[in-house]
Amino acid sequence: MHTPLCDELGIEFPIFAFTHCRDVVVAVSKAGGFGVLGAVGFTPEQLEVELNWIDEHIGDHPYGVDIVIPNKYEGMDSDLSAEELTKMLQSMVPQETLEFGRKLLTDHGVPLPEGDDNALQLLGWTEATATPQVDVALQHPKVTLIANALGTPPADMIEHIHESGRKVAALCGSPYQARKHADAGVDIIIAQGGEGGGHCGEVGSIVLWPQVVKEVAPIPVLAAGGIGSGQQIAAALALGAQGAWSGSQWLMVEEAENTAVQQAAYANATSRDTVRSRSFTGKPCRMLRNDWTEAWEKEGNPEPLGMPLQYMVSGMAVAATHKYPDDSIDVAFNPVGQVVGQLTKVEKTSAVIERWVQEYLDATGTLERLNDAANA
Amino acid sequence: MHTPLCDELGIEFPIFAFTHCRDVVVAVSKAGGFGVLGAVGFTPEQLEVELNWIDEHIGDHPYGVDIVIPNKYEGMDSDLSAEELTKMLQSMVPQETLEFGRKLLTDHGVPLPEGDDNALQLLGWTEATATPQVDVALQHPKVTLIANALGTPPADMIEHIHESGRKVAALCGSPYQARKHADAGVDIIIAQGGEGGGHCGEVGSIVLWPQVVKEVAPIPVLAAGGIGSGQQIAAALALGAQGAWSGSQWLMVEEAENTAVQQAAYANATSRDTVRSRSFTGKPCRMLRNDWTEAWEKEGNPEPLGMPLQYMVSGMAVAATHKYPDDSIDVAFNPVGQVVGQLTKVEKTSAVIERWVQEYLDATGTLERLNDAANA
Repeated sequence: MHTPLCDELGIEFPIFAFTHCRDVVVAVSKAGGFGVLGAVGFTPEQLEVELNWIDEHIGDHPYGVDIVIPNKYEGMDSDLSAEELTKMLQSMVPQETLEFGRKLLTDHGVPLPEGDDNALQLLGWTEATATPQVDVALQHPKVTLIANALGTPPADMIEHIHESGRKVAALCGSPYQARKHADAGVDIIIAQGGEGGGHCGEVGSIVLWPQVVKEVAPIPVLAAGGIGSGQQIAAALALGAQGAWSGSQWLMVEEAENTAVQQAAYANATSRDTVRSRSFTGKPCRMLRNDWTEAWEKEGNPEPLGMPLQYMVSGMAVAATHKYPDDSIDVAFNPVGQVVGQLTKVEKTSAVIERWVQEYLDATGTLERLNDAANA
Repeated sequence: MHTPLCDELGIEFPIFAFTHCRDVVVAVSKAGGFGVLGAVGFTPEQLEVELNWIDEHIGDHPYGVDIVIPNKYEGMDSDLSAEELTKMLQSMVPQETLEFGRKLLTDHGVPLPEGDDNALQLLGWTEATATPQVDVALQHPKVTLIANALGTPPADMIEHIHESGRKVAALCGSPYQARKHADAGVDIIIAQGGEGGGHCGEVGSIVLWPQVVKEVAPIPVLAAGGIGSGQQIAAALALGAQGAWSGSQWLMVEEAENTAVQQAAYANATSRDTVRSRSFTGKPCRMLRNDWTEAWEKEGNPEPLGMPLQYMVSGMAVAATHKYPDDSIDVAFNPVGQVVGQLTKVEKTSAVIERWVQEYLDATGTLERLNDAANA
């Protein structure tokens, strides 16, 4: 599965692993893949600590940092500080919606967070907070890729990253978005099908991937949404991708920080147990279905607000997820893709990479034998 | 792409083409694939005419017939005749829902059908009407496969088909349904991802296919939902399928009966222009989004009834689709998958098969070269 993109990035396998755990970033890159740290939720100071730790442990291997910059929020003044922004947003949330969210938590016996915990969760979701994260990341020479999980990065940010000699990647859910990324100078397009965990569109991977490949050629495309085995990577490469971007699998590795209760929830879930819900971020985002997501779907209950307003309500559930991960599982934010249905056990990260490589060789070997037999 | 299943069925390529047009069945099988005629909507007498025509034109090639037998309808007495059943169902439709459907048609300038046109459309959607179709099909020696598009066929029907020396295939949207098919003795499982046209589940093909392959091995699996190129067939085979089942592509061939207006609607649609809607059959079914599907989604309007009740209302729109295909396009039933986004022109059927085979060889050739380079 060694594609030209591997040579450009100096890696052995085009397996890109998105994770919030620094240990997983290190383990993936050391096993020949490319670890990418999700920076959402970290202050610039916290991010600096994480990246220093990675630098110390990753050896000579490269890695990436993933930020979230929504294109724009309507009516939002970009000159506001993070604090001012938060205050403004909080004032826009209907009291009824806020109370509904609070009641969902307390009904499940989950303590409400104190103080500004909700607001904290906004960090990293605006250009104002993402820019310092990028500045921190660019101070670390082994960070060779900055990825944006939502929308086309602003032109000046792309320029800034390019000037520092790093590549820019961006996720998309349609050929239309892929074209916008390409025109803006994005180096690697990540095409995420509707199967994917987190923010995703509705078009399935098998249809989306080749459309994006065709739209932006010769820009390399990573296939995302439904990657959890070497066979799925073989399918991605057959459809023209130069590599695979994965997230769900890395929740189920020994190096991940997820608790046993969380990992059991993933292990027990089938592919039909995820839902595209607006109940956490305000935009359709795939996650485990639970009492929180169901409550926001129910007729008569408040509808989720838009992004970023909904975060002013769901932030308390996310905070609870972090503080009381096991007790809050039924109202927690558990973003994961449909591929969760094939994740049944916790493995070592290096074992996952080895397994995927072997599965890839088995799958492509079967195709070779079919061709050989047809030619015989 | 010649798999063991090809030898079992005596075909060159494991390309299964679902179509309502006898000309397409013939053209696909003669080009080395396997044409499957959708029997829904045909009386046994009409079906006999179609199959005779196919027999005359298809040479020595085999083909299949697709029927629809929903597992069961609640509270429905299977001893009722088709006429009694229709009358009973019609009496259960709320007048408000029926009037809403009628108004949608007349608001679009589409004449309401006369007499029992609505009821006619139910034909083929119950065991009572599907059984005679199977009996007709089994009189034709070149029919070597009976497929069921919805649910597990009844045990006695499977037995009956097996006794006549033919194979049984059945569609599924989850490993759970696949297991039920396998346990019932189905010979070929068609795993259709949520991308697919017609009735489909929510799990995407890239995730669903390998789960079904694993669940029912060694029973052969056909990959459906998102098949419209040789690359997509290569992906399917990499994921363990023994062939591909396709529908959307065959609406866009010269041999199809679709009008130029219908084909233009498909050619202009992107992959985001389809919707999983209950507005025609009562079950989630993927089709082109239009004024009919949108109206049934709108808050305040009647909600679609269940299957088969909704058909007592939508039958008039389906009848109009047949009688006035061009004038009714905005309220017509246009089942198609997300793959419609890559269908931009009308081709000869034989040219499609040739293209798919070449694309498959290109895709698998690329994978071979990657492996060769990695080993060099």
